[in-house]
Order: sequence, then C-alpha cells, then structure tokens
Amino acid sequence: MSDAFKVCKTVLVTGANRGLGLQIVKRLVTGGCFPGKIIATARNPDEAKELQSMSKDHPNIHIIKLDVVSEESIKKAAVEVEQIVQKDGLNCLINNAGINIIANFETVTAEKMLENFHTNSVGPLMITKAMLPMLKLAAANAVGMGIHRAAVINMTSLLGSVELNWGERAKDFKWYPYRTSKSALNMITRCMAVDLEADGILCVAIHPGWVRTDMGGPEAPLSIEESISSVLTVIKGLNEKDHGTFLHYTGEALPW
Amino acid sequence: MSDAFKVCKTVLVTGANRGLGLQIVKRLVTGGCFPGKIIATARNPDEAKELQSMSKDHPNIHIIKLDVVSEESIKKAAVEVEQIVQKDGLNCLINNAGINIIANFETVTAEKMLENFHTNSVGPLMITKAMLPMLKLAAANAVGMGIHRAAVINMTSLLGSVELNWGERAKDFKWYPYRTSKSALNMITRCMAVDLEADGILCVAIHPGWVRTDMGGPEAPLSIEESISSVLTVIKGLNEKDHGTFLHYTGEALPW
Repeated sequence: MSDAFKVCKTVLVTGANRGLGLQIVKRLVTGGCFPGKIIATARNPDEAKELQSMSKDHPNIHIIKLDVVSEESIKKAAVEVEQIVQKDGLNCLINNAGINIIANFETVTAEKMLENFHTNSVGPLMITKAMLPMLKLAAANAVGMGIHRAAVINMTSLLGSVELNWGERAKDFKWYPYRTSKSALNMITRCMAVDLEADGILCVAIHPGWVRTDMGGPEAPLSIEESISSVLTVIKGLNEKDHGTFLHYTGEALPW
Repeated sequence: MSDAFKVCKTVLVTGANRGLGLQIVKRLVTGGCFPGKIIATARNPDEAKELQSMSKDHPNIHIIKLDVVSEESIKKAAVEVEQIVQKDGLNCLINNAGINIIANFETVTAEKMLENFHTNSVGPLMITKAMLPMLKLAAANAVGMGIHRAAVINMTSLLGSVELNWGERAKDFKWYPYRTSKSALNMITRCMAVDLEADGILCVAIHPGWVRTDMGGPEAPLSIEESISSVLTVIKGLNEKDHGTFLHYTGEALPW
C-alpha cells in the first residue's frame, strides 16, 4: 500500500470489531504491504468473529479488549500494548471507536449528551494519555513527522465542524449529542497537537466520509472499502504540514 | 443604556450570584434604563448576599434557585419563570453560569472532562429547552431578530475557538476540560441557531473577554465593569446578521 506503512511497525485501531475499524485492519493485512503488528481493540473481543477469523490467517493481528469509557480497561489495555510493541513503541494510534446517539433539540437529554461525549471525545483523550509512553518510544526512534515515527489519528466527522453547520448543510443531521462530541474531539485533537509536538508526535482529526456502515446507514454515498482506501492514503502521506489539522478523507483541510 | 433594553421586558441571567452574572444584573438595574423584569438565578440563592441586597432596592429583580446540572432544578425553575414573565414571555436568556476545572494533558481525567462539559455545555442546552415555551411566547409578540423579540446568549470563551488554539496563543491556558466545554457550547449554539430561527429566536455565542473575576484571576486585563459594559452594548445591538455567530465582547466575529 505505501512506503510509509512499510516503515510503520505498529498500529493500534480502536473499535476494530466492525465498520471502519474492521476495514482498516482488513486493508492493512490483505494489502500484503504492512509487515508490522496490528493491535485491534474491541469492547467484546469474543463477539468480534470476523476479526478473530482474520487473526488466524494473519498472526500479526493482536486482538485486545478495550472499553474506551472504562479507566480500568484503558489501563489494562496499555499494559498489553506495551508487551506487544516492546521496544518499537507505538507508531500509529487510530482512535476510531465511536457511537452516534441520535437526538434532536426536542429529544436530546443530558444523559445522551454525556454518553456520546464520554465515548467519542473523552475516550480518545484518555486512550492517547495511556499510550503516550509507547508513542514517545516510537517517536524517539525516528525524525520528522508521520506514521514512520508516531501519530495520533482521531476519527472525527464533518458534522463536528461548527462552521459548516449552517445553511443547506445544516438542514439534515440535527444530531446534538454526535455533532457536539465531534466538535469536542476536534478541540481535543488540537490541544494534543499543541502538547505532543515537542515529542514529535503528529496529531490529526480525519473525517472518513459518510459511509454505509451500521452508523452511516444504507443511503450513505461511500462504501466502507472506498472510505478506508482513501483514509489510509491520507494517513500514509501525513507529514509536518498536517499536524493539528482537520482533514477530509480526500486529504483537503476542513474548517473547524 | 439602550432602546433595545427598553423594549426588552424580561431577562434571565444564570449564575447571577457573582462575577459577570452579578454585574449584568447590577448594570441593568442601576443604569436606570431597564424597566423590565430581571430573573437572576443562583445555585444557592441564600448565599447570594449581594444579589439579595440589590433586590431589596430593585423589586424588578427576581431571584430564583437553579442548578444547571439538575434536571429537576431546571424543571422547577421553568415553572417559576413562567409565573414571573406571564404573557410577556422571555425576551433574553443569558446562559452565563459556568465553571473552569483546570487540568492539562497530564492532570486531566474523564471525570474532570465530564463535569466541565455538563455545566458549561449541556447546562445551557437543557435550560434553553426548558425556557423554549417562554422564548416562543416573547417571539410571537414582535418581528425581526434581537432582544426586543427573543434571544439566547451563550457566554462562551475565546478559548473555545479551535482555530485560535494554535501557535503563540496556544502556549498558555492548556485547559482541556474548559476549552473542550466551550467548543462544545459553540456547536450547541450553532445547532440551536439553526433550529430556533423559524421561531424568530436569535442565538449567539459571546466571549466576554479575559476578566478579573474569581475565574479569570487578578492578572486579567479587563475589569468586570469594562467587560459587561461592552457585552451589554453587543447584546443590545444584536440583529439578524449576528444570528448563529461567535462574537468577541467588542462585537467582532470570531472564528470557530
């Protein structure tokens, strides 16, 4: 797939049991060009049948349990990741796990807002904190910025753009919990970009497109394959100029 | 102070026991130009000594109890507000109550993120929902957009701008919970602007400046008086073109 992925020794993908996360794992291993270790996390690994079946053919897939809203689960996962990556550290952390609690102005409740925020915004922050020692270790082994060194990719959404939530575009998807959680994730991405720059860790927010997943529904214009093929092309090409930005799956910068 | 405030019959200010909220109430009543009703809310009205003392001299101040993170408290407050405003409805809702749970990348926890988000982001949303019937009632009595009709003012912060969180500006105030909560509030403001436009209810996010309050600290460049004088000038001048925007206390538009 890319030279960048050939020198990227370790990738972690959260929410890898289905949808976009599963496709990232699939594409990396079946492309035959990613020789490194893939750590695929799932809240319930026992139910992640497709991931399990893939890992039988591809022993470089390591499935671990991770519930992104549980402090204890994050801690345990960090210990497992450390054992898997060892001295290579973690080159690429893809915070992909997310939920969409659909609620408009009339149906939204405080509980729905808090739940979506916890999973989609706080989860990626706490996971990145927990993986920081491994990201730093990988960053210490290289120079420049990108997945050949260390990168945090937050899977966000165009619906998290406050600027674009206006006019014609704003008429659909009046999803208060989801939109708010993704705006919050964008701010978290930017804060982390500021803080992790000195360690050489690239941070970026990527919109994967509107995709025909369980979350995106059958009317979405993109297939899972099309989205992830494009997202991985963007990820492999990330460099200094992308640090702290919000990118469309086609690679263009999006407004906050 | 302004013609707009002369035709604005009812204002509600949350977090009016101290700081900016208290100053808004003070400025409105002592200016002698706001003849309407001011509903000043506080989590603990018994401890709001200055507000209580002011209300003795100014019977148009109505102090009510409101804890912005309590669904029950919001419900009770809405009933009280309805009794106070009656057929006039609510012209101007100022969601001012907020907290700053200071935490950087190292010290931030999920609990700190959730707590700040609940108060600063979810609170204003749930309060606006509860006050909607009164806002609609006021809106039905006038035309155009502004506080002569019905407006929701969310007190946000420049620190909630994702775009401005970069370069020199980003070196200070690495406050994950606060910054994230204000970005989230900006998205909520924008979502509400989209949804409440048809009812003629103006929605805007205003940055009051960095002010010498308990939250802003003694080094802040603006006095409480300077900030609120400027903020009220912006509020009184609000019209259609400001709907759904993010305004500096000087009236300029800020980037999201």
